[in-house]
Amino acid sequence: MRNANQIYLDHAATTKPYDEVVSLYTRMESEIYGNSSSIHGLGIEALSYLNKARESILKSLKLNKGYKVIFTSGATEANNLAIIGYCLKHQNRGKHIITSNVEHPSVLECFRYLEKLGFKVTYLKVNRNGVVDPSELEKAMTKETILVSLMSTNNEIGSMNDLSKLSQIVHAYPKAVFHSDTTQSVGKDNVDYSLLDMFVISGHKIHGLKGSGCLVLKDKIELEQRVFGGGQEDGLRSGTVPVSLCCSLAKSLQIIQAKISAEFELISKIHQQFLDEIKNVDGVELNSTSSSSPYILNFSLTKKKASVVVEALSNVGIYVSSVSACNSKKEASSYVVAALGKSDVLAHNTIRLSFGEDNNKEDALVFAREFNKIMENIR
Amino acid sequence: MRNANQIYLDHAATTKPYDEVVSLYTRMESEIYGNSSSIHGLGIEALSYLNKARESILKSLKLNKGYKVIFTSGATEANNLAIIGYCLKHQNRGKHIITSNVEHPSVLECFRYLEKLGFKVTYLKVNRNGVVDPSELEKAMTKETILVSLMSTNNEIGSMNDLSKLSQIVHAYPKAVFHSDTTQSVGKDNVDYSLLDMFVISGHKIHGLKGSGCLVLKDKIELEQRVFGGGQEDGLRSGTVPVSLCCSLAKSLQIIQAKISAEFELISKIHQQFLDEIKNVDGVELNSTSSSSPYILNFSLTKKKASVVVEALSNVGIYVSSVSACNSKKEASSYVVAALGKSDVLAHNTIRLSFGEDNNKEDALVFAREFNKIMENIR
Repeated sequence: MRNANQIYLDHAATTKPYDEVVSLYTRMESEIYGNSSSIHGLGIEALSYLNKARESILKSLKLNKGYKVIFTSGATEANNLAIIGYCLKHQNRGKHIITSNVEHPSVLECFRYLEKLGFKVTYLKVNRNGVVDPSELEKAMTKETILVSLMSTNNEIGSMNDLSKLSQIVHAYPKAVFHSDTTQSVGKDNVDYSLLDMFVISGHKIHGLKGSGCLVLKDKIELEQRVFGGGQEDGLRSGTVPVSLCCSLAKSLQIIQAKISAEFELISKIHQQFLDEIKNVDGVELNSTSSSSPYILNFSLTKKKASVVVEALSNVGIYVSSVSACNSKKEASSYVVAALGKSDVLAHNTIRLSFGEDNNKEDALVFAREFNKIMENIR
Repeated sequence: MRNANQIYLDHAATTKPYDEVVSLYTRMESEIYGNSSSIHGLGIEALSYLNKARESILKSLKLNKGYKVIFTSGATEANNLAIIGYCLKHQNRGKHIITSNVEHPSVLECFRYLEKLGFKVTYLKVNRNGVVDPSELEKAMTKETILVSLMSTNNEIGSMNDLSKLSQIVHAYPKAVFHSDTTQSVGKDNVDYSLLDMFVISGHKIHGLKGSGCLVLKDKIELEQRVFGGGQEDGLRSGTVPVSLCCSLAKSLQIIQAKISAEFELISKIHQQFLDEIKNVDGVELNSTSSSSPYILNFSLTKKKASVVVEALSNVGIYVSSVSACNSKKEASSYVVAALGKSDVLAHNTIRLSFGEDNNKEDALVFAREFNKIMENIR
């Protein structure tokens, strides 16, 4: 799964594709290359693969009926389509929408855009564990609320919202739908997706291919399209559908969902091992809590610059991230860690370890050895 | 390049990827899987491949400087970003925009959307050869015109606009930019891309991969983003960049552009052979003209239903299209052929043959034999 002498601890940013996924894709691109909109035999063949991929995705998520799959280029586009597409379509029902202050930029920036268009947005503050207190959502809901978007697992610190309680609160208001950025949960946590009206999958976060993803939503939900053209994907997302990418997404989801419980257990043990090695290091303050996802372990450095440590680790073949990859170029500070009430210094110096199935307990020992060495040597 | 006993004549809908492209992609997905936004070694490595892909694309198009590449999921998304992104960004300069009535839906539907937002749109009518008369564009230009979008080669009938004259007219108005949907020209015609301010590439039309594409635009042009999030691609297109797809696009472009003149000559001969076989068949009326691209040959059936003929051809392993793949599910009639002033019957019964490097002159003979048989047997 990885090169020798490298320890990859950045699975929340992206993952190495499964060999089976790459080989399926390769085979399909050479054999099933028709345009799924063409009415001749090669088109019909491609369309049948595409429809099987849709069915497979719903099956892997244990959603038997009432949901549909709209293929996109990834989770970012899917979040955009869900949030903006829903709000623009149903703004006559009400113009109040709710999210939290620790969402991924692909959610937060949609809300900021809608705010400019005249929507009233409530940005719920998370508590010190990085989760939305259900009672805060309850207080924020109004008769004008048409959409609530709250992530399942936070991409930086791994905090996990209680989707069951939140869903119940949203659905007490018949006008409101519940969208969740589930990018960091799919294939990792046993989420009950039937609690959600709309949610997203990113292929490359689950050992699939970059450029693949989808929005899953209830059949009856109508959206405004965001990409105009030939009207593919139920009129919601124009452009020739990349059938092999869609099938690769279905495949990686199938593989990872099938072993979700066993992997969760394994990763929990690896997480614990890392935690044991790190928690007592001088100058380390944990941001993840005991209720966070085991797939993510986030901490801040109180005395060192995180970016320097990330680079030094990279130089010895250990790959971790500072802030999130989606944000790393724009700002050096983590708004997620700041939202926990932590100081500027801590928000500027976060390190995220995110685990995957190619990690093992030995990695924790190697990491600890190198990390301690670096922490001692850096001024 | 294809299965035995099959004749693929639908290259304008999609093409089979080059083996070199598939193998490059496969190798990269297994080896270069870092997130190009990550600041560690694997991210930096991915970013360097991405930047090389950008450079390679500009080089293949003979654009040395002054242009940039924004990777998208394909030409549809790129057309949307260019047209809507430009108009929303610069609407304070003027709200008049111009296109033609035979553009691809990914262009036309953007104009219809902008019309709803209050833009004044001039839809230029093409002449009987399917091209925009430059004098018509000249008459339509005003001081309020901020964008003109006219395709290079029409995807249904292969008519080719005179980009040089059109560009000159647009650029006499300092406020106006010239966008062209070049999807059907890239890798086929020797276009001087420096005539254009913005244009697009679709990977899967040039033996690349579905889901890959880009917008190429002048460095200084500012656009509104259409997909919100982490701010990748110069803040214009958020979402983890699929580096291997981008490199595959660069590769297919490099291969096809390198042999563009030789292929053009070869395809011209094949086109002529098909034309010779078809033009005298009873019940066939040509829609393509002698000045059309040799890559496309479009005709209407005066006495038979095109969809039935397409299906019958498919049954003997010959793949052609009726209307365009992007439109085939929505409407049975070709608005492009109707725009030539042809009757409803002709517009409803078009057949498009589109050629590629896997075709040869023998194909024309086999096609003619089967086509004639079908035309005789169908009532």
